[in-house]
Amino acid sequence: MPRYKLTIEYDGRPYAGWQRQPDQPSVQQALEDAAAKVNGTPVQVQGAGRTDSGVHATGQVAHIDMQKDMPAEKVMDAINFHLKPNPVSILKSIEVDEDFHARFSAKERFYLYRISNRRAPLTLDRGFSWRVGAKLDADAMHAAAQALVGTHDFTTFRDSQCQAESPVKSLNAISVTRLGEEVHVRCRALSFLHRQVRSMVGTLVEVGRGKEDVRSVGKVLAAADRAQCGPVAPPDGLHLTRVDY
Amino acid sequence: MPRYKLTIEYDGRPYAGWQRQPDQPSVQQALEDAAAKVNGTPVQVQGAGRTDSGVHATGQVAHIDMQKDMPAEKVMDAINFHLKPNPVSILKSIEVDEDFHARFSAKERFYLYRISNRRAPLTLDRGFSWRVGAKLDADAMHAAAQALVGTHDFTTFRDSQCQAESPVKSLNAISVTRLGEEVHVRCRALSFLHRQVRSMVGTLVEVGRGKEDVRSVGKVLAAADRAQCGPVAPPDGLHLTRVDY
Repeated sequence: MPRYKLTIEYDGRPYAGWQRQPDQPSVQQALEDAAAKVNGTPVQVQGAGRTDSGVHATGQVAHIDMQKDMPAEKVMDAINFHLKPNPVSILKSIEVDEDFHARFSAKERFYLYRISNRRAPLTLDRGFSWRVGAKLDADAMHAAAQALVGTHDFTTFRDSQCQAESPVKSLNAISVTRLGEEVHVRCRALSFLHRQVRSMVGTLVEVGRGKEDVRSVGKVLAAADRAQCGPVAPPDGLHLTRVDY
Repeated sequence: MPRYKLTIEYDGRPYAGWQRQPDQPSVQQALEDAAAKVNGTPVQVQGAGRTDSGVHATGQVAHIDMQKDMPAEKVMDAINFHLKPNPVSILKSIEVDEDFHARFSAKERFYLYRISNRRAPLTLDRGFSWRVGAKLDADAMHAAAQALVGTHDFTTFRDSQCQAESPVKSLNAISVTRLGEEVHVRCRALSFLHRQVRSMVGTLVEVGRGKEDVRSVGKVLAAADRAQCGPVAPPDGLHLTRVDY
């Protein structure tokens, strides 16, 4: 059975998240239902990252095994056709060896968290960015964030529902930059704990608005205490932008 | 009565356009209803540009006369409060002299038309950009567009419903640039005919996809013949971005 690597974009708002659930719509189910129509039989779509409810992707990656050999572009177009009207779209499809695994072969996952730093409610970006009214110091947030880089026990930034065996993860890089009224937090790692990015962003925003000082982030990380995490940022601003292999 | 100049952003999808209509939702009505709650009595919101159904704005300008003197920022926050859950938001409010008129004092209106030049259906940008699957030559579109700059009879690019007295308008500038998979058409003028921007963009896309040559745009303009206009671009990609006074 030929295996295809799919690069996927989606608006996470209508979904309970990436992962298939018995009673709620998921991105995985939308893809599996569309792919089954192309394949003729049920098919499993294995994703690189299990994004949460309301979280978006511009570069999620998944693999799929099809019954018959089709040109990779045909697989993309046919699944996209059956995906309508779901806001889920395959951007790219290539045939890969059967030892390629979207989840286990991934070397690095990239996230962008968008903050709209403004007083006025959002309109065009509603659901796609987190509006923070208080003026944020992006340079202070960037400086504070550097304490998170490296291998650490990320218990402070880990949701109580997290199923990972260990709270130890390696954050390869994190940056905070201002682009006009937007503040972008970008980070990358082999993998993340449940709600780790949103927990880190929420804590960094406390620094950005001047409620906590720049060194506080290293301290709450070292405490390995969930109670010391700032308010978790909403899913709206979170986008899985890329997965490297 | 103090007059305020409001800078307004909106998602045009739920509206029949800017202008108040007897039986359909409009951006103007959403603003007037919200402002009336702040004002205590009905109030008129006069906009700089009458955007069409499904057209967006990130920099529409309007003026409003309120019963009592309020700090400009209070006017903005109070109207924004009552605008919820409409995807309409006041970004900025300043008090102006009573001789300021959002429509008649405007010196230049700026539009952006977003094209997503890709094969895959849109998800996050659905409704906010026009997807064109065929590869576009943005440089050819830019070169072709320059024939439109200046004072011309724009009959070719004018909707049959246009109520302007004359088809003669002055286009101050138009540019076509590629940003990754997006192609942006930006133009500015004192004023535009009904559907002029969408008509120009639709015609330029015919050049971009190689169906018409670069010099064709000057020729169809000179013909002053609506039948020679390319397919009119959909409202999705059109954004009123700025009005100068």
